[in-house]
Amino acid sequence: MQRLPIAVIGASGYSGLEATRILAHHPAAEVRLASSDRWQGETVERHTGLGGATGKLRYAAQERAVDLAAECAAALLCTPVEVSLQLAPALLAKGVKVVDLSGAFRLADPARFEAAYGLRHPRTDLLGEAVYGLPELPLVRERVARARLVANPGCYPTAATLPLALLFRHGLLAEDAPIVDAASGVTGAGRKASEDFSFAEVMDDFRAYRVLRHQHTAEIAQSLSAAAGAEVDVTFTPHLLPLRRGILATSYLRLREGVAATEVLAALHDYAAEPFLRIAPGADDVSLKSVVGTNLCQMGIAVKGTRLVVISAIDNLVKGAAGQAVQNLNLLFGWPETAGLDSLRGSHP
Amino acid sequence: MQRLPIAVIGASGYSGLEATRILAHHPAAEVRLASSDRWQGETVERHTGLGGATGKLRYAAQERAVDLAAECAAALLCTPVEVSLQLAPALLAKGVKVVDLSGAFRLADPARFEAAYGLRHPRTDLLGEAVYGLPELPLVRERVARARLVANPGCYPTAATLPLALLFRHGLLAEDAPIVDAASGVTGAGRKASEDFSFAEVMDDFRAYRVLRHQHTAEIAQSLSAAAGAEVDVTFTPHLLPLRRGILATSYLRLREGVAATEVLAALHDYAAEPFLRIAPGADDVSLKSVVGTNLCQMGIAVKGTRLVVISAIDNLVKGAAGQAVQNLNLLFGWPETAGLDSLRGSHP
Amino acid sequence: MQRLPIAVIGASGYSGLEATRILAHHPAAEVRLASSDRWQGETVERHTGLGGATGKLRYAAQERAVDLAAECAAALLCTPVEVSLQLAPALLAKGVKVVDLSGAFRLADPARFEAAYGLRHPRTDLLGEAVYGLPELPLVRERVARARLVANPGCYPTAATLPLALLFRHGLLAEDAPIVDAASGVTGAGRKASEDFSFAEVMDDFRAYRVLRHQHTAEIAQSLSAAAGAEVDVTFTPHLLPLRRGILATSYLRLREGVAATEVLAALHDYAAEPFLRIAPGADDVSLKSVVGTNLCQMGIAVKGTRLVVISAIDNLVKGAAGQAVQNLNLLFGWPETAGLDSLRGSHP
Amino acid sequence: MQRLPIAVIGASGYSGLEATRILAHHPAAEVRLASSDRWQGETVERHTGLGGATGKLRYAAQERAVDLAAECAAALLCTPVEVSLQLAPALLAKGVKVVDLSGAFRLADPARFEAAYGLRHPRTDLLGEAVYGLPELPLVRERVARARLVANPGCYPTAATLPLALLFRHGLLAEDAPIVDAASGVTGAGRKASEDFSFAEVMDDFRAYRVLRHQHTAEIAQSLSAAAGAEVDVTFTPHLLPLRRGILATSYLRLREGVAATEVLAALHDYAAEPFLRIAPGADDVSLKSVVGTNLCQMGIAVKGTRLVVISAIDNLVKGAAGQAVQNLNLLFGWPETAGLDSLRGSHP
Repeated sequence: MQRLPIAVIGASGYSGLEATRILAHHPAAEVRLASSDRWQGETVERHTGLGGATGKLRYAAQERAVDLAAECAAALLCTPVEVSLQLAPALLAKGVKVVDLSGAFRLADPARFEAAYGLRHPRTDLLGEAVYGLPELPLVRERVARARLVANPGCYPTAATLPLALLFRHGLLAEDAPIVDAASGVTGAGRKASEDFSFAEVMDDFRAYRVLRHQHTAEIAQSLSAAAGAEVDVTFTPHLLPLRRGILATSYLRLREGVAATEVLAALHDYAAEPFLRIAPGADDVSLKSVVGTNLCQMGIAVKGTRLVVISAIDNLVKGAAGQAVQNLNLLFGWPETAGLDSLRGSHP
Repeated sequence: MQRLPIAVIGASGYSGLEATRILAHHPAAEVRLASSDRWQGETVERHTGLGGATGKLRYAAQERAVDLAAECAAALLCTPVEVSLQLAPALLAKGVKVVDLSGAFRLADPARFEAAYGLRHPRTDLLGEAVYGLPELPLVRERVARARLVANPGCYPTAATLPLALLFRHGLLAEDAPIVDAASGVTGAGRKASEDFSFAEVMDDFRAYRVLRHQHTAEIAQSLSAAAGAEVDVTFTPHLLPLRRGILATSYLRLREGVAATEVLAALHDYAAEPFLRIAPGADDVSLKSVVGTNLCQMGIAVKGTRLVVISAIDNLVKGAAGQAVQNLNLLFGWPETAGLDSLRGSHP
Repeated sequence: MQRLPIAVIGASGYSGLEATRILAHHPAAEVRLASSDRWQGETVERHTGLGGATGKLRYAAQERAVDLAAECAAALLCTPVEVSLQLAPALLAKGVKVVDLSGAFRLADPARFEAAYGLRHPRTDLLGEAVYGLPELPLVRERVARARLVANPGCYPTAATLPLALLFRHGLLAEDAPIVDAASGVTGAGRKASEDFSFAEVMDDFRAYRVLRHQHTAEIAQSLSAAAGAEVDVTFTPHLLPLRRGILATSYLRLREGVAATEVLAALHDYAAEPFLRIAPGADDVSLKSVVGTNLCQMGIAVKGTRLVVISAIDNLVKGAAGQAVQNLNLLFGWPETAGLDSLRGSHP
Repeated sequence: MQRLPIAVIGASGYSGLEATRILAHHPAAEVRLASSDRWQGETVERHTGLGGATGKLRYAAQERAVDLAAECAAALLCTPVEVSLQLAPALLAKGVKVVDLSGAFRLADPARFEAAYGLRHPRTDLLGEAVYGLPELPLVRERVARARLVANPGCYPTAATLPLALLFRHGLLAEDAPIVDAASGVTGAGRKASEDFSFAEVMDDFRAYRVLRHQHTAEIAQSLSAAAGAEVDVTFTPHLLPLRRGILATSYLRLREGVAATEVLAALHDYAAEPFLRIAPGADDVSLKSVVGTNLCQMGIAVKGTRLVVISAIDNLVKGAAGQAVQNLNLLFGWPETAGLDSLRGSHP
């Protein structure tokens, strides 16, 4: 079978590399273009070690990415916000569908985008058009299937929103502002030469960062507000873990008076048929090792009185980035949603 | 100068080992007895590598610990709750002062002890007598100085209580139940041969445990209730970090309407002269690497509207166990509070 | 297509778990029996998270393994030496082919087996019959294809032998005894509850073990002697790395006078068409991250005068255990050698 | 007592930071000057957390270091080779004694310096004058006591030379070229913002680097040749460990025919009274955790036939850099050799 040509733009970053790896074994898609300035001219095989699955493909220069992508059916933009803001319109103009992994098109409200990212959005028309691609939320699959531009969710928002939006939608929660306390592996910060992310500084350490001012707060709030049908104020604290991959989010909520743990579990049962969601027996059973290397999100709860604690875990580079992007690609082209993702296996230990 | 003889009972566990190391360089105290069944008969030097500071001292059998400790001025009990419940009364009866590092004497209310530890307290008289030895809390120094029995605080409670009790005492907080989300290195679980704590299982993983049912919850609540002058309901979630030492606690509180961040900082300024407490410029600046290997507790805050996030960090084996025990020993005998602790240095990287 | 039924015996150890994961996506084989006392009665899905690929399969008791395996075409024995010595003959008697991952059948000489494993071999007839299944060595593929019993090589021997046997065979080396200095991740020691392998002891540490008396020495020597056509005396030192997976072997050899680095590289070129072997540009380019999660062995060299340093790396649980076992299974049944193994991807970072 | 003023130049690198920490608790020395461009103007307390031991001292600019150091009795140069080559002569001209932690003055032969460091030595007179400060080697203590310029040994050379030079001196070894296979924690590479040393790249990886071309090879060979009284050819391979601190060296030697293990142990007994050297019961007992955080070098052996394996371990930042520099400072000024170093304690776990 002829596989559809796909572009991976920004292919030497961690999410670009992961997207390349996943697509190398995709039954219906093929990486036709991989662009990266740092590796320009080198073979993709050299950097991915995929054993020939990428053939003789070589990395192209970023500046030629839009031109070369014209022959592709879709492009995954694994680029910073500023770059995605430029490339996405140019690609769409050439008829190339876009899954953007940056934060450029996630916040529907331009004012919130500006507050979160510190720059004025140059294409508010596209903000309005972009579909926020968290497929397990209501109607998202249908909307992605008809989309030109998919805003692939952030890693923390994916981990937090999957369980919380469902609970808000079911009306089980009191009006208390939810708290999302989360920790991520270092690849969440992307690939960079920085002393702050050097091994000697990060190893054996643990700390919070951007406390009460992380840009993902608005993204989580947007989804939860939509689910609740009312403005939800979210407190979100990210932490940096001394490990490579994985996000674990511990969220604190209040149940409406009289709601029992069984009702929460019943609500989560809505997800029973979801191919990438797993409900753990309890909150203690959720762990990074259950999900790292896969496109899964695992979630579990604990309840005491009206206090509800929800724990959820994903691989930040897979369900939190490249895996979810491929899931959206599958929806865009009507392929089975698990195509290319079902052969991913956890590898712990 | 003749140094006062001290017993370290349960000396082969991680907190016992750390106590032995700290006391080896104490100007006024000397380890006269170190008991451990697993290392009985072997030299302390072999297991601590302290370069002669422990002379020819050898580990004694646990069953002889009480008898042998009779010649000591005080004993540090680095033993499980059940063992401390037996040893503490026996040592007190022989006139030996006791600093107990277990949870045996921390909860003043026998009912709460029973709920937390699953056994009936056999000596409620001693529960009443024991001084909860968190020296930086009001009046504790005076009370320890006159005590026979000190209940050395738990590791998580030390990290959480130091900043939070102060803020409750200052009346800055709304009545919302505080949330303490904390993560600890693996030594917090003690030394054990267990697959759950094996390297292959813990490495690169992160998870919560005992969610909404950890025994330290009652201990934190007891201290915060005392500080608030009213019952405080605490939600506490511990997590397991893939590192050896350190606890970072991220606590979520509500300020009373109208209270500003500057007032919170002003309250923390009460701690300015404390030898072991450090106020960080901001919440992002608190990190394990600032405290591991030392008896310090570092703390910082972030405020947005009425939301207050407090982050605090300690070394669970030092300020969270053996270091604080030596601090209490210093108070018991009227030595400078920093004796034996001021030469501890962080070692990051 | 009907897939051939396979038994994984000892399925809860790390190599058994890895074999189960790999076979779950094998096009021609299917795990029909997975035996494990610790997980008896539980679903394989629960412990592997393979998303339904293992259907309703549940772990069977070890004592029923031989009986239940009778309906399988082959069994992978992921069991200790003593257990393999009992199970292999029983399975062969029922007509079940066996790939044994233990050391029970690797050393052809009974005296060397006894010296290495400290017990007398009860079935020297099977020692003689077993094929040492390192497929990239000469004639091994043909022999495995006709075998009933395959001795799957040890992890260290796989890493060391792949490059060194080739060089010995080419006659490039002087008679100096080779030195193999190697380091392994902790999973090489198997799954066990042991303080020595607890996180707190292993993390941030590095040490050698069983220096000059590791049982894999004889296995490496056996292969190199066969390649050299003369007795080769090997010095082998294993070390324990604070990571989960991977073996890196640094081997020290002497070139025959006058042999140039280009000749060594030319010899390695014999491996150019091997699906699982990769020649790195230089010794510095070989790394665990290039191979962990895959069935690859990567190797590189450095030469200065007559000194030759060869560095080789594998994933100890894949090419060093379960992956190679599946490779042997493929040879046993005439399937493509890469079946089930070509979708394995490295996951660094 | 008035403490002697010392300068730490290059104080924000890892060895400069460690030197500052050690000197903060030195009974006879005091850091009067700490220079660092990156932290210029900030307090030393802020970056070392030494609890007031460094008073109000602030980091000075590097370009003023020589002028400001004029009032100090000695300077520790924690600077790169090129910088040390400039600063050392300038400081000596002002009458300031110098302990240089770089490789600038370690190789007595200018040709070997040029081969190792790729630049011509500008002050071969100082090369001749500098004392190679490995105090446990014969006559070094006496020579340092009279020196103006001490070349503090490299980290790998310290670990390898301490046991091997002794064995060469005793004439126990055959003429085979020794092999030193060593692995170091990441701080050995210094503090830098580099993708190669980023957490995501180093974590869970292990690799060799600069194989057969590391600059420390010549330094080890120089010491062993001196000990053997004949030219010794050394093969040295460094590896990068995913941990912060520590070097473990595994060295391969041949005993002269007829030499027994007991003779090797008897030779090591020469070190029995050395305050910083520890002979382990066996090769398997040597580990990073025994030495990290201390100025100790631990060593152990294994023998089989004529094969001798020697394992030695140090903390690369202490005995391999700043600790040994303070040891040399103590010798320079006639202080007890352990001053400031005896309160260092290991902290494993």
